[in-house]
Amino acid sequence: MATDIENVAHLTLEENGVEEDIVDPWNVVGKSEGGVDYDKLIKRFGSSKIDQTLIDRFEKVTGQTSHHFLRRGIFFSHRDMHSILKLYEEKKPFYLYTGRGPSSSSMHVGHLVPFIFCKWLQDIFDVPLVIQMTDDEKTLWRDLKVEDAMKMMYENVKDIIAVGFDVNKTFIFSNFDYMGRAPEFYQNVVRIQKCVTFNQVKGIFGLTDTDVIGKIGFPAIQAAPCFSTTFPCTFGKRKLPCLIPCAIDQDPYFRMTRDVAPRLGFVKPALLHSTFFPALQGARSKMSASDANSTIFLTDTPKQIKNKINKYAFSGGQASVEEHRKVGGNCEVDVSYKYLTFFLEDDDKLQQIEKDYTSGALLTGELKKILIETLSPIVLRHQERRAKITDEELKLFMTPRKLSINID
Amino acid sequence: MATDIENVAHLTLEENGVEEDIVDPWNVVGKSEGGVDYDKLIKRFGSSKIDQTLIDRFEKVTGQTSHHFLRRGIFFSHRDMHSILKLYEEKKPFYLYTGRGPSSSSMHVGHLVPFIFCKWLQDIFDVPLVIQMTDDEKTLWRDLKVEDAMKMMYENVKDIIAVGFDVNKTFIFSNFDYMGRAPEFYQNVVRIQKCVTFNQVKGIFGLTDTDVIGKIGFPAIQAAPCFSTTFPCTFGKRKLPCLIPCAIDQDPYFRMTRDVAPRLGFVKPALLHSTFFPALQGARSKMSASDANSTIFLTDTPKQIKNKINKYAFSGGQASVEEHRKVGGNCEVDVSYKYLTFFLEDDDKLQQIEKDYTSGALLTGELKKILIETLSPIVLRHQERRAKITDEELKLFMTPRKLSINID
Repeated sequence: MATDIENVAHLTLEENGVEEDIVDPWNVVGKSEGGVDYDKLIKRFGSSKIDQTLIDRFEKVTGQTSHHFLRRGIFFSHRDMHSILKLYEEKKPFYLYTGRGPSSSSMHVGHLVPFIFCKWLQDIFDVPLVIQMTDDEKTLWRDLKVEDAMKMMYENVKDIIAVGFDVNKTFIFSNFDYMGRAPEFYQNVVRIQKCVTFNQVKGIFGLTDTDVIGKIGFPAIQAAPCFSTTFPCTFGKRKLPCLIPCAIDQDPYFRMTRDVAPRLGFVKPALLHSTFFPALQGARSKMSASDANSTIFLTDTPKQIKNKINKYAFSGGQASVEEHRKVGGNCEVDVSYKYLTFFLEDDDKLQQIEKDYTSGALLTGELKKILIETLSPIVLRHQERRAKITDEELKLFMTPRKLSINID
Repeated sequence: MATDIENVAHLTLEENGVEEDIVDPWNVVGKSEGGVDYDKLIKRFGSSKIDQTLIDRFEKVTGQTSHHFLRRGIFFSHRDMHSILKLYEEKKPFYLYTGRGPSSSSMHVGHLVPFIFCKWLQDIFDVPLVIQMTDDEKTLWRDLKVEDAMKMMYENVKDIIAVGFDVNKTFIFSNFDYMGRAPEFYQNVVRIQKCVTFNQVKGIFGLTDTDVIGKIGFPAIQAAPCFSTTFPCTFGKRKLPCLIPCAIDQDPYFRMTRDVAPRLGFVKPALLHSTFFPALQGARSKMSASDANSTIFLTDTPKQIKNKINKYAFSGGQASVEEHRKVGGNCEVDVSYKYLTFFLEDDDKLQQIEKDYTSGALLTGELKKILIETLSPIVLRHQERRAKITDEELKLFMTPRKLSINID
């Protein structure tokens, strides 16, 4: 049986001479206008599709209607999610782990996706969540000083708290800070770094001899929180299983971790993979905070949101009203429609919009208006919640401490 | 002008087809029976010889007779030592940094050398000293678990304390422990790791693609204590110059650090290099704790010391008493004589021994007896001091805290 690490070789394969989508932690480029081919990605990465059987089991085990991110295939791929549901059924403890690389002082709407989903998972499973802020990664990969990365990090933490996490069950930590607060973090990093060669990191992440040594060692820093002993204040010395909701571009880190885990006496972390949140200009690339025109920031005003959507959101509609009425719009490539699949919770309403846009009954301008009216209040409410976060609250979320565990 | 890193290329050069001594942090092999050619090493490494001018200045500035390690060329090479003496003259602060990789639960007599010298430097300069215990390095390079490396580390720290350091001026830290006590340590590590590529680490340390990523990142861990901000409890945010007394095999780490320092706004660390402490079997290799027969441990009994020296200490004497009386012994290769240069402080007595052994008046057995009578009491006294060290004392030495600084 191939190990998780061996599967990675497929990443660089080209199938039948056709250039493939590029998906790694630093690049996402879809070859077709509709974006990345996620079914192909599941094959290449060796993960499993989130199918109706898994969703049904999810609902049965938790007694909750599944989140629209699951129903609509926004979280579309997984590793070992059945094992996690089994743990939940057996009332055995586990925890959630996700992360964020603070790339700018303001996050964008797409950055909310994993956190919205984590909050939902935390609520229905009643489990602790640890959130890693990779300010070190951003310092290493960008032209950024330690101090500036940390400033961005604190700003981003406020946005994350504003998603509504339960402080009794959530620990948010910055690598630059927490590495100096728990010797067990560095100890686990070294344990992992002892199991992975440069050849493997080359194969998994495409790093080269001209890369700085900080980049070469970094994958172990992102891997360490998969091991519960990295958080002695929170979990003591217990080795708890871990579930990671994240965008699929982060999977390489956790394939590496899954390969290492058994050698260190840990269970392989389970994963739930999301699709990418498309850039305004089209689904070929993901929304990026470093390009203001392709991005709706969480700090944008309703006016800015309206202007950006009207001006930049790639349309699947036709060139003229007449043609649109006749041929209809293409939801497969329309960015406004795609954004609604993320943020419009009402299934019936979304279905009607898809029907009307496809038939031509709904024009691009009207579709954009619906998106603006859906997204603006979400961003406004986020800004209101964020404004109320005090320094004490931020400090508490970032203090290493015991968290409530569902079953002890 | 060549940078410190560029000088390193010479390490792998072979001069005129003659194989060179191998000297790196993991291997020391001298090609001649007398051991490593230290004058050649100074040329290859691009350091400076400790000459009579420097020793005279040392004595003038400090008002002290220089240590016999300096007078006898045991500390034989330096970088920027004149700058440190200038700082001392101008009453400007600096600090000492040295380290130890805990490779066995007992240290050997050769391990004392840098610490004996550091204590002397600390006493005459009245400066703080930080001592790094690289338990992480040993975990990465050997078949050793984190826990076991830390156990060895604590045992080694007791041996170091027993050398007689002033607790008010000395901070001893384990990487596995201290990394989790000061965020500034990891922050400086990342700053350094951002300045060094894998290509450079390959060139300096001979690491390859099959090495684990922990080894590739490690040089930055050994470099970080050269920057005083790694110790905020001790030095606050001040950027103080640093002087490193160490065996010359550690120089590659600090050539790398000296290359990085100006880019991070720090002064290049100054160095004092010692020769190697020879193995009992001969000066071609250094004493190693992993080979019990080549080693006199600090835990050895007087009987063990006597037996090991009599049985194993490589002799520069002749095959028979008659021949020895006629031809004389060779101090250049005689290990017992070499050990006396380290541990017999009386210059006149040592000179007489050299004279008598060279002439043949002193036999190998007699020379060994002098060494046994010199070394045994030193080891016994060490054991007595070590036995008195309490856990509280150990904890205090290892607690991050403010240290007395000569000039504030």
